Amino acid sequence: MCRWNAYVGQPLVIGELLYRTRHGLIDESLHSRMGAETTNGDGFGVGWYLERDRTLPARYRSVNPAWNDANLRELADHIESPLFMAHIRAAVGSPVQQTNCHPFRHGRWLFVHNGFLDGFQTLRRDLVLAVDPSLFDGIAGSTDSELLFHLALTFGLEDDPLGAMERAIGFVESKARERGVDNPVQGTVGISDGERLWAVRYSSQHESRTLFISEDVDALRRLHPDNERLQQLEEGDRVVVSEPLADLAGAWIEVPESTGLSLENGVLTQPPFQPR
Amino acid sequence: MCRWNAYVGQPLVIGELLYRTRHGLIDESLHSRMGAETTNGDGFGVGWYLERDRTLPARYRSVNPAWNDANLRELADHIESPLFMAHIRAAVGSPVQQTNCHPFRHGRWLFVHNGFLDGFQTLRRDLVLAVDPSLFDGIAGSTDSELLFHLALTFGLEDDPLGAMERAIGFVESKARERGVDNPVQGTVGISDGERLWAVRYSSQHESRTLFISEDVDALRRLHPDNERLQQLEEGDRVVVSEPLADLAGAWIEVPESTGLSLENGVLTQPPFQPR
Amino acid sequence: MCRWNAYVGQPLVIGELLYRTRHGLIDESLHSRMGAETTNGDGFGVGWYLERDRTLPARYRSVNPAWNDANLRELADHIESPLFMAHIRAAVGSPVQQTNCHPFRHGRWLFVHNGFLDGFQTLRRDLVLAVDPSLFDGIAGSTDSELLFHLALTFGLEDDPLGAMERAIGFVESKARERGVDNPVQGTVGISDGERLWAVRYSSQHESRTLFISEDVDALRRLHPDNERLQQLEEGDRVVVSEPLADLAGAWIEVPESTGLSLENGVLTQPPFQPR
Amino acid sequence: MCRWNAYVGQPLVIGELLYRTRHGLIDESLHSRMGAETTNGDGFGVGWYLERDRTLPARYRSVNPAWNDANLRELADHIESPLFMAHIRAAVGSPVQQTNCHPFRHGRWLFVHNGFLDGFQTLRRDLVLAVDPSLFDGIAGSTDSELLFHLALTFGLEDDPLGAMERAIGFVESKARERGVDNPVQGTVGISDGERLWAVRYSSQHESRTLFISEDVDALRRLHPDNERLQQLEEGDRVVVSEPLADLAGAWIEVPESTGLSLENGVLTQPPFQPR
Repeated sequence: MCRWNAYVGQPLVIGELLYRTRHGLIDESLHSRMGAETTNGDGFGVGWYLERDRTLPARYRSVNPAWNDANLRELADHIESPLFMAHIRAAVGSPVQQTNCHPFRHGRWLFVHNGFLDGFQTLRRDLVLAVDPSLFDGIAGSTDSELLFHLALTFGLEDDPLGAMERAIGFVESKARERGVDNPVQGTVGISDGERLWAVRYSSQHESRTLFISEDVDALRRLHPDNERLQQLEEGDRVVVSEPLADLAGAWIEVPESTGLSLENGVLTQPPFQPR
Repeated sequence: MCRWNAYVGQPLVIGELLYRTRHGLIDESLHSRMGAETTNGDGFGVGWYLERDRTLPARYRSVNPAWNDANLRELADHIESPLFMAHIRAAVGSPVQQTNCHPFRHGRWLFVHNGFLDGFQTLRRDLVLAVDPSLFDGIAGSTDSELLFHLALTFGLEDDPLGAMERAIGFVESKARERGVDNPVQGTVGISDGERLWAVRYSSQHESRTLFISEDVDALRRLHPDNERLQQLEEGDRVVVSEPLADLAGAWIEVPESTGLSLENGVLTQPPFQPR
Repeated sequence: MCRWNAYVGQPLVIGELLYRTRHGLIDESLHSRMGAETTNGDGFGVGWYLERDRTLPARYRSVNPAWNDANLRELADHIESPLFMAHIRAAVGSPVQQTNCHPFRHGRWLFVHNGFLDGFQTLRRDLVLAVDPSLFDGIAGSTDSELLFHLALTFGLEDDPLGAMERAIGFVESKARERGVDNPVQGTVGISDGERLWAVRYSSQHESRTLFISEDVDALRRLHPDNERLQQLEEGDRVVVSEPLADLAGAWIEVPESTGLSLENGVLTQPPFQPR
Repeated sequence: MCRWNAYVGQPLVIGELLYRTRHGLIDESLHSRMGAETTNGDGFGVGWYLERDRTLPARYRSVNPAWNDANLRELADHIESPLFMAHIRAAVGSPVQQTNCHPFRHGRWLFVHNGFLDGFQTLRRDLVLAVDPSLFDGIAGSTDSELLFHLALTFGLEDDPLGAMERAIGFVESKARERGVDNPVQGTVGISDGERLWAVRYSSQHESRTLFISEDVDALRRLHPDNERLQQLEEGDRVVVSEPLADLAGAWIEVPESTGLSLENGVLTQPPFQPR
């Protein structure tokens, strides 16, 4: 369940993307009330970096459905950021509470996840024990996603985000084999340190949730001719979204199955993603 | 836009109806996450009478979506009541706050509404002024529904619930004509004083939201052969629901357009509903 | 019963004042847990203007106690503003809900109030009727404070804030006389349009809650030698606080009883306040 | 911080104790707004057993301050129970979220704690690892109190509550010695299985928070001559409270330092409490 998106580029008022694009994240959540496939009404979160200091991301997280949160609407109109991530949650088991809302944070790092660890009740204790003791107390909530993030931190996320994700997911899959859990990992992941953006599309059974990246800003500009801010987007401004935005064909590149994504200084690479 | 149901009969653990029937109210809200037509995630409320004292209804109301409210699940399993009403809300304009959650209450009276007053922003001040000054301070929230309830109280709801609803809605329609608002009233209404239950299905354009009443308890028993509590229902135990429960055909009688409903001492009557 | 403060000057990270000054607003609320006179735990709000656009104030309001709101802590560290107001609430009668949290807003105007209208239940309907019909629908909550703001708007707040407050309070006092309510008005008020700041200290019985303004920034700098940001405050940067900060003697000027305050282009005036 | 109380006896409407006794739990919280020593405004919880089934305790927990929670007031007036526990929280570190509100529950068991584990960040991982794997997934929140409960369950609470508490606290103290944490345990604990009530007053440094038990119902009756329900209390009805109710001298017996308490079939015993 869940959906997320991320933006990196010149400073943008975050509401431009969350509310004022067709099929923006909140629009999706509004839209789903009108007949879309799922409701993501179990809380949400936004994390953003400031232009003046990219080492201290801020978060606004809430257990309200995103569509009816009055504060989110206010903040979205007033916060300008060169890099932000937003996440809407559909809980699958763990409680609806602020500490279970994405993005999760460690120092300058933000992390979002659309998906789940299957057999989490069976695996949870093993995974908790594998988290580095120095990171243990950073686990504030009770989700599989936050635990996956702390495993990735344990396996070196701050030095090599995609490699650490490969090792963390590989570890989950090995523990799952020991415990007789099939296909434990599902989802897409977004990671940032305030300068760069990484993403992963992977599932143990290789039928992963979708992940898209904007092809170029020209397409976005053409789609929203009346949106002044979007008209001012420049080459290198990029949007990553976890779920397909159907009628924006041409504007989006689908990230292939079992693939990572890295956006660094405007350079996009998409290495294969191979848990080990 | 909202759904409600009501039960009157022998004392029943309210969770039997809210959670453990097919297409119960919370099931509907859960179901809507899986693809149903609408989401009713903007708060909810339950009002119930105690067997030992039917003059002091209790309420539990919350701004959480009903499907993820942990307290509702607890209470539903432990509260037993001979008459209760539940409501899930999809807000159309007014804020998501507890004072806007149904049921509304005045003394021993409870009131739920599935629908809206069209042109409410235009009409609101006129309607507020028409509320009896002695009732004015009882308006705690900002919904059209609560205001309609206080108009009905002003027009004699405590003596003649269906007649007062006719006068209140007639008044709204006359004010709407003055202000150039077409078809101002839409919806179904449920009313109780702890002993009796009334309902209304009406809209100014005579295309009202649906309203159903259980035909007889035999049908409910047959549909849930494994539910011990429902097996113990007796003749005279009745359920009123605002929205059609599709696959329970045979178990439900649709209340006709522009019709009232009265359940008093086990006697069901369905007079025409004619605002004046 | 509530406290508030306001800042106008060069852009300041709002947390500097809310959290990192001695006896800042949140500190007060934390402090009150340790033995202070009152608890202001019934919600709070912050309203701020952006340097780049002073016509669209943002608000973050919540029903949580300010001291335990995780989002406030986040926002306070990341929002920079040349003019902001913060308010912590101790409810006296009206529900704890977001629409009852200060600051209230109308267009570019923000409004906070520390105090109450005595006999509000008796007076409420008269006051609601006196609000200009075009402003009627802007009343989102149920507090005396928001209603007082809308009366002041009705009496011309946007053209003459202090004069409109005199007329609004004069009106409340005249209605109170009609209804036999003694001493209906109590409190201090803060008002801004994003450029200028006004305040009022007044009560019908002339025993008003306190109101203070920072004498000069030198004093603040001397009191917090280790706070880099405060060291950078310039002449003309001013703080207005509703409650006395005892050990900052010398740094604060008490606003006299029945007095208004106006801060415009760095010029402070304190005219007498005479309801009429 | 925190406070709690518990009642066992003939079925009582829980509001009689929570709201309508002098210095009842909510009154304390209200009172603390007027000048008492501390504020317990970081959430609360009530757990109660039904007369008809004492194996399935219900809980109502909320992150609101108890004093302003409208639902608690409703429920307190309508829920009747022969055994209930209520807890108001002052958070010391862990987040204000429903899963951190007492009472904690395991099957038919309820648990409340007024106090803390000092050095919890240092000890947490060791303690988590010591919880029986079959109980691990029952830890829903992040408090020291819930973890202490699960340690006690691991050490046999369901067979021997006071002995298990001695072993659990002994274990915490031994881990604390290993990690160089002095005096790790502080507080009072309440435990019930729906039939019986246990309590502990203990701290590692033998300066524990207070704990009191009602001497006899005569005293309570004399103190509230106008409260009809309390007049009907019978011998054997007992109240346990964590904090001294000053002006009820004569009505309360202080539980001595380092002492357990057991109420079983009306028989009160107070064995020494010796962690091992």
